[in-house]
Amino acid sequence: MSRFWSDIVHRLTPYVPGEQPALAHPVKLNTNENPYPPSPRVVEAIRRELGETGETLRKYPDPTAHALRATVAAHHGLRIDQVFAGNGSDEVLAHVFQALLKHDRPIRFPDITYSFYPVYAQLYGVAFDAIALDDEFGIDIDDYRAPGGPVLLPNPNAPTGRALTLAEIEALLKANPDSPVVIDEAYVDFGAESAIKLIDRYPNLLVVQTVSKARSLAGMRVGFAFGDAALIEALTRVKDSFNSYPLDRLAQAAATAAYEDDAWFRDSCAKVIASRERLSGELKALGFEVVPSAANFVFARHPAHDAATLAASLREKEIFVRHFRLPRIDQHLRISIGTDVECDALVDALKPLIAA
Amino acid sequence: MSRFWSDIVHRLTPYVPGEQPALAHPVKLNTNENPYPPSPRVVEAIRRELGETGETLRKYPDPTAHALRATVAAHHGLRIDQVFAGNGSDEVLAHVFQALLKHDRPIRFPDITYSFYPVYAQLYGVAFDAIALDDEFGIDIDDYRAPGGPVLLPNPNAPTGRALTLAEIEALLKANPDSPVVIDEAYVDFGAESAIKLIDRYPNLLVVQTVSKARSLAGMRVGFAFGDAALIEALTRVKDSFNSYPLDRLAQAAATAAYEDDAWFRDSCAKVIASRERLSGELKALGFEVVPSAANFVFARHPAHDAATLAASLREKEIFVRHFRLPRIDQHLRISIGTDVECDALVDALKPLIAA
Repeated sequence: MSRFWSDIVHRLTPYVPGEQPALAHPVKLNTNENPYPPSPRVVEAIRRELGETGETLRKYPDPTAHALRATVAAHHGLRIDQVFAGNGSDEVLAHVFQALLKHDRPIRFPDITYSFYPVYAQLYGVAFDAIALDDEFGIDIDDYRAPGGPVLLPNPNAPTGRALTLAEIEALLKANPDSPVVIDEAYVDFGAESAIKLIDRYPNLLVVQTVSKARSLAGMRVGFAFGDAALIEALTRVKDSFNSYPLDRLAQAAATAAYEDDAWFRDSCAKVIASRERLSGELKALGFEVVPSAANFVFARHPAHDAATLAASLREKEIFVRHFRLPRIDQHLRISIGTDVECDALVDALKPLIAA
Repeated sequence: MSRFWSDIVHRLTPYVPGEQPALAHPVKLNTNENPYPPSPRVVEAIRRELGETGETLRKYPDPTAHALRATVAAHHGLRIDQVFAGNGSDEVLAHVFQALLKHDRPIRFPDITYSFYPVYAQLYGVAFDAIALDDEFGIDIDDYRAPGGPVLLPNPNAPTGRALTLAEIEALLKANPDSPVVIDEAYVDFGAESAIKLIDRYPNLLVVQTVSKARSLAGMRVGFAFGDAALIEALTRVKDSFNSYPLDRLAQAAATAAYEDDAWFRDSCAKVIASRERLSGELKALGFEVVPSAANFVFARHPAHDAATLAASLREKEIFVRHFRLPRIDQHLRISIGTDVECDALVDALKPLIAA
């Protein structure tokens, strides 16, 4: 607390990201990172931009990230003016709240969802209604059909992992033609269908994606928004009033190369999906209830064991999973999908805890 | 324009950064980049973090940039809780406007200064008074002595290059004990004295710096704020409500290494300063009036030649300088200091234009 703070600072309850343990070899299943490295083309592209002397680093990067946006636009069959790039999808979402979600009526998002959403709302003074998920942690699209303020839905949802169908999203768009509808697709490549193909028909649709998950580049901080050119212009105007150059040279090179290696991306996703199905089966065999997941994590509870206690016991064995002390989900664990070796280590560590 | 935009978007006039020409070998003296590459240790550090396979890039970076902040704190004789790191000093300044400059009374900054300041003010709804520089483009500290809202001064100022003394800054701090005073030191290493040494005595002082200029890392986007721990906490609260991970892994490694090679940094600054004095003399010999500069650029006008015409003529020769179409300075050119070869190319190109 300080009298030098702007008023807003006193009112903030910042987001708390998952722990980044300073251990040599943790089994790190707490921040939904990809267990596989990025494409070798990413490493080549960074080395090429770096050169022998790092000479290019003395110069500002392209403030418009043109080459990156052109590559990603082509990948998704979009025009470049339908693509916005930012410093991770968290920054993109922050700009979305400021540029597109502050209207007369409160925005709507699920009560159990990415816990950064209410933080952004607080930062930008955006009123919101948190709409309850059903008892199986599903989003009932009928709850969002009545026209109202903007809608923000993650698909698949986090931390539940449950996905909506494209038909449900289209029904939502049809019911809300006068409000922005934002679909946060951070995890879409692990089992849901992207709404990008609806962009040309719905000028109120914005889709947010990231290279942090399916493209194994959480360490490089690149995210996107896709939508009608007018929506992208709003984000660009805010970005150019905030930071002209949000993406450094190596990040732009890395993300561009990641989109150029589609085979690597598909293979990496397929491996994660196979491991998810395997781990889900093993957790069920231990008595866990596992929410059906279309993401690179599973959300599970054990009817006979307290989730916080399980998480703490795992942590002692240097196995990290995410536990949220929040209403309705404080008996669940969110477990990122690691390699099969990591998933096995988790199951082996859980067995004596469950037997106890 | 779109009905989906938040109100603020309609009101924004975004900042326009200097042109990044897509030419093979432009003489680029328009964005105050360092003409010398970063330290070889920077390149080594990036290669080390990248490794053979880019394995670490799949994992999130340290959201607190602890190693980087510890290195920079030690360099400046500060504690780590007196150091904030962001995605370039532009992002840091944006957070400063939101976290520390929105109070009941308008903030004060010069009428001729970094043209991003009024843009931030607009984005965050911060009222401001632009206080006129004197006829020699100097800041008269007496204009800021009457207690009022927060004060924001660049030292040296841009685009003029003129510096304040540390005694003048201390007088300002003494006169404004109840308001934040922010000194933007993007160019300080080329000839002004840093106010960092005053931090322990003035809890209202915040100093902003960058690796973009003196440390040759404009392409990597890293900036800092230094000040009392309470001021840093305000910035951290806003940052953690905006983007948990603003600095990617390679940017953190690069900036840390840049601070570890002080000899390279000093040598690079000394070369730029020597070239500035040489170029200033040559411009004066051509009849230019050159504002005394403590930065890595000079601000000059020719009494007989229109500045916009000169800039356009230079551009045809692939020589880029910055011209601002703004009141009081539309007859000036801001010329970044390049290598002596680049400065010679500029002077050679100017000679026939001036003779014409």
